[in-house]
Amino acid sequence: MPELANPRAERVKAVRALAGRSVRQRTGRFLVEGPQSVREAVRFAAGQVRDVYLTEAAAQRYDEIVRDAQAAGLPVRLGTPEVLEAMSADAQGVVAVLERRPTTLDELFRGAPRLVAVLANVRDPGNAGTVIRAADAAGADAVVLAGESVDPLNPKAVRSTAGSLFHLPVVAGVALAPTLERLRAEGLLVLAADGSGEHDLDDLQDAAAGGAPAGVPDLRTPTAWLFGNEAWGLLPTDRELADAAVRVPIRGRAESLNLATAATVCLYASSRAQR
Amino acid sequence: MPELANPRAERVKAVRALAGRSVRQRTGRFLVEGPQSVREAVRFAAGQVRDVYLTEAAAQRYDEIVRDAQAAGLPVRLGTPEVLEAMSADAQGVVAVLERRPTTLDELFRGAPRLVAVLANVRDPGNAGTVIRAADAAGADAVVLAGESVDPLNPKAVRSTAGSLFHLPVVAGVALAPTLERLRAEGLLVLAADGSGEHDLDDLQDAAAGGAPAGVPDLRTPTAWLFGNEAWGLLPTDRELADAAVRVPIRGRAESLNLATAATVCLYASSRAQR
Repeated sequence: MPELANPRAERVKAVRALAGRSVRQRTGRFLVEGPQSVREAVRFAAGQVRDVYLTEAAAQRYDEIVRDAQAAGLPVRLGTPEVLEAMSADAQGVVAVLERRPTTLDELFRGAPRLVAVLANVRDPGNAGTVIRAADAAGADAVVLAGESVDPLNPKAVRSTAGSLFHLPVVAGVALAPTLERLRAEGLLVLAADGSGEHDLDDLQDAAAGGAPAGVPDLRTPTAWLFGNEAWGLLPTDRELADAAVRVPIRGRAESLNLATAATVCLYASSRAQR
Repeated sequence: MPELANPRAERVKAVRALAGRSVRQRTGRFLVEGPQSVREAVRFAAGQVRDVYLTEAAAQRYDEIVRDAQAAGLPVRLGTPEVLEAMSADAQGVVAVLERRPTTLDELFRGAPRLVAVLANVRDPGNAGTVIRAADAAGADAVVLAGESVDPLNPKAVRSTAGSLFHLPVVAGVALAPTLERLRAEGLLVLAADGSGEHDLDDLQDAAAGGAPAGVPDLRTPTAWLFGNEAWGLLPTDRELADAAVRVPIRGRAESLNLATAATVCLYASSRAQR
């Protein structure tokens, strides 16, 4: 019999309430939904995991999650499908509650990062999460959500990272200007991704490959990419904080790429040049 | 006074009903929502536009849409905010009704395409639309939605293209195997994007830049990229229809990129090699 059978129990409501930002801030906890994200949380952030909840069917299907959690000494609790559904509508029978453990810029720099993505005022949780996932895939060392950016522990943001939230340091809630100053002080080139940037990414890639137009930023240098809001891009005052602004070439008639696809192209160009 | 003031009028209901696939198929029309998409429809597909609807505020704010529509002899109708809201909840006061004019593979090949994106069984309209937008930005010549892929005239798909639906030919409702056969017969290399592909995209890019590991597909060749479903990727039987399978390198711990970001990296790699 599952331990948890009452979808209206206080414990269940407390898990569901973590969807709200104010509850996350008050309790210092957040919600991780779905087998992919929970698997990565248990593997890479076991020290933050307070509880893992599964339906019996999910515990069988994703038995590696149960094994990894038990091996890490984490409490694994079975609930009825109604209980899991009450905790989250997007969990496919698997939920975990984690403690927030904010990463500081100091911690980030201890790793001597060579590729960092900085989001300025990115508001949509799905976009922020997708950029974190793409940054992980491209081999970036960290992601920073600056200015008025969304909370990366928002459930939709967490889901969109597909587990990457637990793979690399994600710093949130910092002001943009001092963050960029610090990045520069640590030796990183700061490049703003901007549709009307003065440099074409193709030229930077050509230069990095040795076919070089002179006078363009060197992609092989440790780099922080600055990405702006999904709707209005970078404010001019924010763009000016960068060392240079770079546009992804638009070869067709599209006005622009969306945030996540543009960020992916820039980050992959850097990680390829830095190989 | 706006011409249309009754949100319950038959005309208004008929516009809203185009959100449904069966209505689109019965009427041969579809809905375009929002200033960006309507602007591009009026500019690039005026022959398909039946009606443009705006609120008075939107007609002032987006006066270039009204000007372009009138210059093309298209009917522009003003409606109250309630009428536009009843037509679409996502229109920011601007809606157009267009006639479907399906593009055939024959028409596509008349343009001698050098870069084509083929989606196999992509189900999510937002993903399909984002790939169409990225394909346009990368300079692809066409997009083909094959197999059980979503209808690209689904309103969410149209919105996600941000107008790119009207910039390049989009072929839908075709079977995958004969489409790939045809692409190959027309001289295109067919590359499957697949996380476990036998080739690394980096190697193809190195080869195209002349730094060449031998024996990898030539990215400078006219190419059709095959992308699979957002959740389960390409079925093995579909992957086998390609000339080769190529993986986007994952440099971090992410399991994969999402569909749209992976497609963007592949298409940009091709268009860069084909410069």
